Amino acid sequence: MKEVVSAGGIGDGEYLMNQRLGKTKMKSHTEYLTMHVRGRMAFVNITPKVEQALQKSGIQEGIALINAMHITASVFINDDESGLHHDFGTWLEELAPLYPDPNHYHHNRTGEDNADAHMKRQVMGREVVVAITNGKLDFGPWEQIFYGEFDGNRPKRILVKMIGE
Amino acid sequence: MKEVVSAGGIGDGEYLMNQRLGKTKMKSHTEYLTMHVRGRMAFVNITPKVEQALQKSGIQEGIALINAMHITASVFINDDESGLHHDFGTWLEELAPLYPDPNHYHHNRTGEDNADAHMKRQVMGREVVVAITNGKLDFGPWEQIFYGEFDGNRPKRILVKMIGE
Amino acid sequence: MKEVVSAGGIGDGEYLMNQRLGKTKMKSHTEYLTMHVRGRMAFVNITPKVEQALQKSGIQEGIALINAMHITASVFINDDESGLHHDFGTWLEELAPLYPDPNHYHHNRTGEDNADAHMKRQVMGREVVVAITNGKLDFGPWEQIFYGEFDGNRPKRILVKMIGE
Repeated sequence: MKEVVSAGGIGDGEYLMNQRLGKTKMKSHTEYLTMHVRGRMAFVNITPKVEQALQKSGIQEGIALINAMHITASVFINDDESGLHHDFGTWLEELAPLYPDPNHYHHNRTGEDNADAHMKRQVMGREVVVAITNGKLDFGPWEQIFYGEFDGNRPKRILVKMIGE
Repeated sequence: MKEVVSAGGIGDGEYLMNQRLGKTKMKSHTEYLTMHVRGRMAFVNITPKVEQALQKSGIQEGIALINAMHITASVFINDDESGLHHDFGTWLEELAPLYPDPNHYHHNRTGEDNADAHMKRQVMGREVVVAITNGKLDFGPWEQIFYGEFDGNRPKRILVKMIGE
Repeated sequence: MKEVVSAGGIGDGEYLMNQRLGKTKMKSHTEYLTMHVRGRMAFVNITPKVEQALQKSGIQEGIALINAMHITASVFINDDESGLHHDFGTWLEELAPLYPDPNHYHHNRTGEDNADAHMKRQVMGREVVVAITNGKLDFGPWEQIFYGEFDGNRPKRILVKMIGE
């Protein structure tokens, strides 16, 4: 996991000045998570990683963007329940079936075999945007952030970007 | 509707200081809307509620995040036309049919009956992000924000988060 | 393409003050792109337009929102490969078929013929949110931004909104 923190340090004098003005400096924080999922399709709960990034950011009020950086993977929010994940897999296979051979999907005439993965990712989405309130991810009772892999067995990255104050 | 406003008040001296510096303080605004929809599936236009939140925020330039806080509901932008909403219902039922019994969906072996609602929500999406320009939601001619309920008859919450200046 | 730049100019004195405080002013930038696609369905790579907007914005760290302003069009991120675009077209036609007559879709009893386009847009999504890091769109190796038209032959707009510092 490579990490970039763009919010510069705040010296004591600046802190006092901020206090006096009642101002808060805009902060941003950027992290890249690397996922290496075995198997073609899988769902991985990345909520703890995003919470760790939030703690490092020091942001109290703002928003977090979490997106797959690859186009055959998703980031989405849903339930952490293994039966549901099984159902998602079956359902996505029905909506956008795997046909590795080049006869069905034109994309697979380029030497790829993953056209179905590009479609599954569109159904599940590329990204989520999450509110940060009082220094925490502002979630409902069951919300958890998942990485959805649809063409695995190789490393892929997730971007976590937070801005706020 | 609980409401939290995180942008602190600005005193007169601070206002003058801001003016002199040509600076604008970053503001944020957070609201929670509670929806209680009768029936299993329904679409509710929440645009007026979001516009009210924007007025309270005082934000002129920024972005608004509006998301369902529950994982069997959606927030999406589309047309306020009852025929289309009927069509959405029929179409979603074809794409992700309701099977309350535990034989079809594994999720429904946990005692739940709403696996289909988790899927319908993925098709319609969890959230929208809307630009705020000149103090208004920056919408095209037909854009309206909807709450999509897929497992109703109980209260659920929507988060409205705005950041900007 | 109409363009609105909301970030006010920064005078020399202000710049020095910013430096001393270690502060950066929040910036925002708004642009509207007009698309006029021939044919009913098409996918257009708009990444260069968004990169131009980013350069004009002067934003180094922040986020960009790019959304269709019309409800029968999408903005999404995927691969710039013509075979895949063909596959997307075929697949979307299976998921949400075109039936212009009013017998199938209720929406088409209003005089419209584009109910299918409202559905195709839900599958592909209204918007993307992209991180801005070190003054660039923070993309994975294959990410490109596309406008997806599902009811073309007329002008439609895309909104590009960037906020950050």
